[in-house]
Amino acid sequence: MTDSKRLSAPVAPGGTIGILGGGQLGRMLALAAARLGLKSHIYSPEADAPAFQVCAARTIAAYDDEAALAQFAAACDAITYEFENVPASAVAVLSRLKPANPNARTLQIMQDRLQEKNFVRDLGLRTAEFIGVKNEAEARAGFARLGGKRAILKTCSFGYDGKGQAKVASADEAARAVAKFGVPSILEAFIDFEFEASAVAARAADGSFAAYDPPENLHEHHILRRSTVPSRLSATQCEEAKNIARKIADALDYVGVLAVELFVTKDGALLVNEIAPRVHNSGHWTIEACTTSQFEQHIRAVAGWPLGDTSRHCDAVMENIIGEEAADWRALLARGGYLHLYGKKEIRAGRKMGHITFLSRLRESR
Amino acid sequence: MTDSKRLSAPVAPGGTIGILGGGQLGRMLALAAARLGLKSHIYSPEADAPAFQVCAARTIAAYDDEAALAQFAAACDAITYEFENVPASAVAVLSRLKPANPNARTLQIMQDRLQEKNFVRDLGLRTAEFIGVKNEAEARAGFARLGGKRAILKTCSFGYDGKGQAKVASADEAARAVAKFGVPSILEAFIDFEFEASAVAARAADGSFAAYDPPENLHEHHILRRSTVPSRLSATQCEEAKNIARKIADALDYVGVLAVELFVTKDGALLVNEIAPRVHNSGHWTIEACTTSQFEQHIRAVAGWPLGDTSRHCDAVMENIIGEEAADWRALLARGGYLHLYGKKEIRAGRKMGHITFLSRLRESR
Repeated sequence: MTDSKRLSAPVAPGGTIGILGGGQLGRMLALAAARLGLKSHIYSPEADAPAFQVCAARTIAAYDDEAALAQFAAACDAITYEFENVPASAVAVLSRLKPANPNARTLQIMQDRLQEKNFVRDLGLRTAEFIGVKNEAEARAGFARLGGKRAILKTCSFGYDGKGQAKVASADEAARAVAKFGVPSILEAFIDFEFEASAVAARAADGSFAAYDPPENLHEHHILRRSTVPSRLSATQCEEAKNIARKIADALDYVGVLAVELFVTKDGALLVNEIAPRVHNSGHWTIEACTTSQFEQHIRAVAGWPLGDTSRHCDAVMENIIGEEAADWRALLARGGYLHLYGKKEIRAGRKMGHITFLSRLRESR
Repeated sequence: MTDSKRLSAPVAPGGTIGILGGGQLGRMLALAAARLGLKSHIYSPEADAPAFQVCAARTIAAYDDEAALAQFAAACDAITYEFENVPASAVAVLSRLKPANPNARTLQIMQDRLQEKNFVRDLGLRTAEFIGVKNEAEARAGFARLGGKRAILKTCSFGYDGKGQAKVASADEAARAVAKFGVPSILEAFIDFEFEASAVAARAADGSFAAYDPPENLHEHHILRRSTVPSRLSATQCEEAKNIARKIADALDYVGVLAVELFVTKDGALLVNEIAPRVHNSGHWTIEACTTSQFEQHIRAVAGWPLGDTSRHCDAVMENIIGEEAADWRALLARGGYLHLYGKKEIRAGRKMGHITFLSRLRESR
């Protein structure tokens, strides 16, 4: 059923892409769809979702409202979601009615850090060492098994921007973190990486694949501050990063854009940190620097269109605008570059309010 | 009143720009506003207006519905329009309630070809020779006074894409054209131009001004087929074109983007053909080739923001997708470049359905 739906006819211009989630990613997806002559129908439980400002149709309902989901599916020609914290059950319901991508299996794996890490390891890809933890005793034992120095304790589900995780430097701290965040959790060896990077890429239903140049990412307080292309990755490492994304996408029979967050170790190895089954903050610079942005690319993939050209015609730096930084919009404007504001009603600490992309003349990647 | 409103505080992000008209220009204005964190409220008499697919609020009402206009004004922080065939009376009503630009005087002049041509001539700018015509006898006499060879008869009001105009090659034909199109009309000497170009530029409320590199425009059957930058204009002619736009904008105390269509004669003179008090089809390439697109620039101006950087980082060719050309969207996609489809429900002969922009590496203007 899913397969036949996935291979159904592409959505023609004038058709409607359904998007679960109404934040900035849904908003930028809707804007990209509009350029291609496609309508967007946004589904969000929040009445003031930013994406509602730019779409052709709106559903305000909970993600477990099966009647609302069915009505939504009936109104759409293809369906996607802007973030991986949508219940997998909602995507499963929708995928019985209309082509819905990325598929429910992907979502299920990505919603559990332990499953995600096992999946990555089973593909022969490298990660930080990790151990699943079901109670405080396992946390203590796991900490010792990871070398007894430093580790990160993360809850298995529903974390983003550093929420639900803590650095731990002793077995006691590991146990306390489990007590605080709950189980199941995962304990990961702390990686003293050289820098972070990400592979942002897309796979279409016919198996074709296209990757962007991998950006280098700088996080502050667990939130992305800046993405830069070209990165410090060598040409060989760039190829390796793209191949990692391809291996993951192929294994999932993935349709859409995905991002793989990578640690680049001091000896040049690429370790998979996290997979985001969606467009990704570290790919926002593609809007201005590439022929096909990650948002257009995702829409193309989920609409059954051929993937677009991912080549980059400029170097780029993307900086997030976080929390109070959005208050002085005149100062932001004065910085030049391409200002994106997400239409969020309320400024909150740590909230992504917008971003700015700066372009410069293309130089060769190292 | 108008002046104090025009100098009122800029619209902050989160505010609402009201746009009269829901076609592709309103749609692309709304998309540009969204990137800046501004909401759009589209006002159109047509329920299936393409811009309704991408806006935060909609009013479906006639342009002479004063109650609807007042409600619309109350919901907006600043108001503009996408095309000059909106009744000047509507803009006059709105401008008493909220900052509305371009101003009503501009609209009034531009809605009458004879007034427009007189206005241009009074500024010391060159046009084709022209004569106002109020009846068939005046058409015959006018034809003789313009040299008795070839001329164009145009109705004074509400023409676009060649509607309401005809080439005439005799006094009889001139008289017949008047009988067909009605009076008042204007008879213009036929210009055997070398090529056509346009000056696309913006003026802000504080008088600051910014122009794009003037594109060269090719029309087919009176409809724009292709715009190319750089054009065949020399650097001196480019400056002259920008100065023409500046002179016009200053004289009108203009706020927003305007386009001046120019004939470039075989001896290198620039004659003003028409003024469009709005974003213009010949400026669509600015979306991809310039730091600030004409749509963002117009929104900035009408919102009271500083104008953005108009510099061009690529060469560009923009081609319109007209009528049936939109039917084979797969073939359009396969052409590469940046495809824009306008979300129009129905394909009609001569209807602008979308455009494609092709970028290439910047070379120097001649």
